[in-house]
Amino acid sequence: MTDTDPDADAYFSSYGDLEVHKLMIQDSARTETYKNAILSSRSVFEGKTVLDVGAGTGILSIFCAQAGATKVFAVEASKTAEMARQLVAENHFSDTIEVVYSKVEDVTLPYPVDIIVSEWMGFYMLHESMLDSVIVARDKFLKPDGLMFPSHCTLYASPCALPDLYSEWDNVCGVKMRSFANALRNLYLNRPKIMSVQVENMLAHNVSPIVELNLKSCLPQQLDTITAQRYLTIVEKSGIYQGVCFWFDVQFPTSGTTLSTSPSSPITHWKQTIIVLPTQIEVEEGDAVMFNVQFSRNSPNSRHYSINLEMLDSEHEAHPNPCDCNQTKCKIIKTFLSVTKNISDDDDSSIDDQNEDVMS
Amino acid sequence: MTDTDPDADAYFSSYGDLEVHKLMIQDSARTETYKNAILSSRSVFEGKTVLDVGAGTGILSIFCAQAGATKVFAVEASKTAEMARQLVAENHFSDTIEVVYSKVEDVTLPYPVDIIVSEWMGFYMLHESMLDSVIVARDKFLKPDGLMFPSHCTLYASPCALPDLYSEWDNVCGVKMRSFANALRNLYLNRPKIMSVQVENMLAHNVSPIVELNLKSCLPQQLDTITAQRYLTIVEKSGIYQGVCFWFDVQFPTSGTTLSTSPSSPITHWKQTIIVLPTQIEVEEGDAVMFNVQFSRNSPNSRHYSINLEMLDSEHEAHPNPCDCNQTKCKIIKTFLSVTKNISDDDDSSIDDQNEDVMS
Repeated sequence: MTDTDPDADAYFSSYGDLEVHKLMIQDSARTETYKNAILSSRSVFEGKTVLDVGAGTGILSIFCAQAGATKVFAVEASKTAEMARQLVAENHFSDTIEVVYSKVEDVTLPYPVDIIVSEWMGFYMLHESMLDSVIVARDKFLKPDGLMFPSHCTLYASPCALPDLYSEWDNVCGVKMRSFANALRNLYLNRPKIMSVQVENMLAHNVSPIVELNLKSCLPQQLDTITAQRYLTIVEKSGIYQGVCFWFDVQFPTSGTTLSTSPSSPITHWKQTIIVLPTQIEVEEGDAVMFNVQFSRNSPNSRHYSINLEMLDSEHEAHPNPCDCNQTKCKIIKTFLSVTKNISDDDDSSIDDQNEDVMS
Repeated sequence: MTDTDPDADAYFSSYGDLEVHKLMIQDSARTETYKNAILSSRSVFEGKTVLDVGAGTGILSIFCAQAGATKVFAVEASKTAEMARQLVAENHFSDTIEVVYSKVEDVTLPYPVDIIVSEWMGFYMLHESMLDSVIVARDKFLKPDGLMFPSHCTLYASPCALPDLYSEWDNVCGVKMRSFANALRNLYLNRPKIMSVQVENMLAHNVSPIVELNLKSCLPQQLDTITAQRYLTIVEKSGIYQGVCFWFDVQFPTSGTTLSTSPSSPITHWKQTIIVLPTQIEVEEGDAVMFNVQFSRNSPNSRHYSINLEMLDSEHEAHPNPCDCNQTKCKIIKTFLSVTKNISDDDDSSIDDQNEDVMS
């Protein structure tokens, strides 16, 4: 599942599009979470210098100035920078916020900054890879004890049902349209689909992260390939497994605020990203669903990723230990481990050693 | 306000897009109204022959077969015809419905038909002009006493407020963004905007049609230019006049069913079409708002229209007689006419003659 390579110019000119900024600003879950994260941390921003990477219309820079920052560098590589300048003036922050029309990679700043803010996330978090620019900015300009807003990000996946592509076409106003649904699914097999997944169609919510990044310390090469091998999810309710739903969240420091794009959170313009399965599988509560998934850049300069999803047969794959799934083997091991743990608690020996014994 | 010319091939290939058909089929106001109009007219369809112009996935043809039609020609010029064939088979109507992969202009049918069904409407009704093909089909294939489904269509316009482009930008999470709203409006000044207008932002609902067409008798050249001169609307509540909202409805024969795309009807994929004004004007209940509007084809072969809207100053334009607006002149004339009407009712003379006297 591969997107085509855009060139960098096209990327920046598409972001010059006012309509895109309209969509992002009017995404109130996004804009208000950033506002709350920044304005509830006044003590952190008061008197500080800030760098806003990919500032767009400059709305985050204005939040930072409102929170008491004394200097904000709003770096924007598209012509939206001119709009940012107008909005900064309209809000009487021209003395505090300096709009810099440049790629952040080409910028020089007079001094290091205390805080970097950025809204760099794309679909499925990684799409468009603006995070690379944020990392460049961090390594060039952030003080060693500086803060990242947001500070952490996490990507998740869960099996889901997709009635919109399956059962809803069994009867459309009294007409059977399964052939149409088949054709739709074939269309989607070659590309990720951005859509809102209804909570009731999620087969699990309590899932492990595919990747967690600490934005203060992550390395750019970590973004080249993100892989989860034998990623296991335990189905929380019976249903039909028809796709894999990806979403992400980002966490802000000091306030503990989170911006989540999960199906159970308020809808955002990122919605969720779906990989549609070529087949559907009935699953029951407690079943393990397993796959390998890899996000890899198309090429070193690309802002897009290929997503490779390989379905695994959870009956024939090794599970982690302990595993909460309903397979007899896992239940036995889990029971054995809990008994062993009680013994080990008593005799104070290492649980990890015990586990290794059980597994070997 | 001009759209660019597409060539006919691009038009038919874009309509081959499954996503567009998904959108249309899942537009339940559209699909269910057609279904109800057809299935509530069983006595009309029973034993009859039908031509479905621009059949798409063939769902309307299937409704006609369900309503008892003995033969349906489903003519579709895009590759969606192949999908229509599959869906017809899936619904066991292959003996009744004949899918014809062709432009209707190139088709020959073995005999005339009793009924033509078509869902030919584009944005602001006229966009894409599939109605031309329906008229060609009518003149070639419909029996003299045949029926059109739908049978009539009407285009409307009303002044409206556009907070989404004006006041909502005065304070976005505590940030003033009027410069951004200005830029957005400049963007929209050169093209019609397809959006959903909230009912509360309409300044009038009870408006005159810009054009009404009887699909049984209208002529193709009527579609080249559609003009309303000194189109007058009486504002029904005070507000700010920031745009003109266009919508349409189509009526079905025999059942009296209407498919309306007005802001007060359930939302459809057509939404409404807005022309954004370069200025905003405060208006009060009873004020007359006037403009000239002209929809004209870009060229004889084009499927797109230019929309020219010319604002008029209702203070200095002649109003129709009688006129319900709050201008003193109109109130006096209206009162005078109603008195004259009472006299004329008594003495049985012609009201029209009386009116002409008053006006002369």
